[in-house]
Amino acid sequence: MRGRSKDRDLLVADIGGTNSRFAIAVSETGRTTLQRVTRFANAGVEDFPTQLTRFLSSLDMPLPARACIAVAGPTDGSSALLTNGRWQFDAAALKRDFGFADALLINDFTALASGVHALDDAHTQRIKRGRPVTGAPLCVIGPGTGLGVACVVSPGPTQTVIPTEGGHVDLAAVTSQEWSLKQALHEQLGTRISAEHVLSGEGLRRIDAVLRGEPGSLRPVETITQEALGGGESWGRRTVDQFLTLLARFAGNTVLSQGARGGVYIGGGILPRLLPALDTGQFARDFSDKGVMAAYCEALPVHVITDTETALRGAAMAFQQTRDRA
Amino acid sequence: MRGRSKDRDLLVADIGGTNSRFAIAVSETGRTTLQRVTRFANAGVEDFPTQLTRFLSSLDMPLPARACIAVAGPTDGSSALLTNGRWQFDAAALKRDFGFADALLINDFTALASGVHALDDAHTQRIKRGRPVTGAPLCVIGPGTGLGVACVVSPGPTQTVIPTEGGHVDLAAVTSQEWSLKQALHEQLGTRISAEHVLSGEGLRRIDAVLRGEPGSLRPVETITQEALGGGESWGRRTVDQFLTLLARFAGNTVLSQGARGGVYIGGGILPRLLPALDTGQFARDFSDKGVMAAYCEALPVHVITDTETALRGAAMAFQQTRDRA
Repeated sequence: MRGRSKDRDLLVADIGGTNSRFAIAVSETGRTTLQRVTRFANAGVEDFPTQLTRFLSSLDMPLPARACIAVAGPTDGSSALLTNGRWQFDAAALKRDFGFADALLINDFTALASGVHALDDAHTQRIKRGRPVTGAPLCVIGPGTGLGVACVVSPGPTQTVIPTEGGHVDLAAVTSQEWSLKQALHEQLGTRISAEHVLSGEGLRRIDAVLRGEPGSLRPVETITQEALGGGESWGRRTVDQFLTLLARFAGNTVLSQGARGGVYIGGGILPRLLPALDTGQFARDFSDKGVMAAYCEALPVHVITDTETALRGAAMAFQQTRDRA
Repeated sequence: MRGRSKDRDLLVADIGGTNSRFAIAVSETGRTTLQRVTRFANAGVEDFPTQLTRFLSSLDMPLPARACIAVAGPTDGSSALLTNGRWQFDAAALKRDFGFADALLINDFTALASGVHALDDAHTQRIKRGRPVTGAPLCVIGPGTGLGVACVVSPGPTQTVIPTEGGHVDLAAVTSQEWSLKQALHEQLGTRISAEHVLSGEGLRRIDAVLRGEPGSLRPVETITQEALGGGESWGRRTVDQFLTLLARFAGNTVLSQGARGGVYIGGGILPRLLPALDTGQFARDFSDKGVMAAYCEALPVHVITDTETALRGAAMAFQQTRDRA
């Protein structure tokens, strides 16, 4: 029954800067489940085909005939360059070298956003209560290596995921302290300051360095978060509080810009680690601090994606949608 | 042939704070044209039915059986309160009192955005060259009484118009002068400062007052624009330059947030009057001043909508779409 299995199954992958995740997405009676979910560290691995071969060697089932690979970097669907700069590959070579009948490359944040509408309580932690407007767009924000932003229009089987560059908007300082931070970063980096300059792993380190009065001396993210989670007053605590306030303001602004009355999903690697330090009341106040639009924002829920397989499921959904439309 | 005419035709209206526009939208072989376009000033008119009766009295053709009314204010499709606060009406009463078989109320900015994809060179003035990405979302921005923002997803017959509240995002000051302006307005108004606080008719007056050092003394918009258009150095000139820079920055940020690689259309009543004072080179530089995203913005065109009937045509398109989906 090898042929039938090949038709039904899809290899999915989520290639980040640090790890690669693989799985086989199996669709049965309209429902997609992931099987053989596997994670490999990328460090020391020469190229993507090597990583893919490791996964395929571990499989005790027929090789799927189709693949959808989500990559942390720009892609036009047929070729990709990972943002880490080391791996470059294209769909045609994957088809040739691994015998796929069909292969699609998509951006990893698009994959994450594609999987968001199917998330439930087991995959997320709600950090702000609210009632989404049915059928309204969702906003997906991911502070990590960068600050990814996407908008999911008409969430569900017929959804459209709009990849955006919302992380690169001008940072909107509200308090004098935030303006001082923006000015300090502007002087240090010699460039205009975007939201991503503060709402990312590097951004967390930059906030910490400016608050400590040593803009050029970046401490590891681990050190800052451990200090913040340790309780009591510390630079790490102040840094994390400022980071979370800026993130809440940014999320509110993105909701307004996108008309995202379906609410907010926050992905990326940073927030799940900061959850124990999050004051949800303060987050909700900062998120809804929008003057005449306060009630608009107060009505909306905000979730943190704690699940690590959302992008894999999203890749399967995005593949299906792309091929259905073709 | 009265019955047939009624089936094919649609009464459309665009009710603003100052004027009401009416027309009969006639659809033939897939193309919609406006007939009997009429404008009435709203000043001194008691209610919308009075205004509608004036238009209907002027018609030398059968009354259409269907109506789509675009209103400057919030609406749920069946009732509306105009932002000017004087007129309130609902679709059921219009059907009862005027014999419409079908009546739909929509927001006027949604109507404008719905008509944007069909605009051509006769209806717009391009103020920045660029090549839009085919099928990508369009961004529609309208500085007027307020600052309207909408996103048009998949522009064309199957488009989705997302009404947003993007005008209410935190104003993102970039230069020290912009931060001083934001601070002065914050102290004066006692509220957080949004983009709309400066990018609107009142906003133009506020910028002028702060630059002149008399934050409480607002001059008429006409005085400011005439000064700016008069040539030479003046407070009006400086005000308009600052307004246009803030608008260009805001448009760039909105494009990034919405992933609007289809480009920007600027509607509303203010820009068409400022066109003679617009330095298109400076506007393009301010629009694309986005660091690593400069090339992303440089690629996109920006148009000003000079046509006054776009919202009427958009109302016809939105009506058709809404009923097709129902």
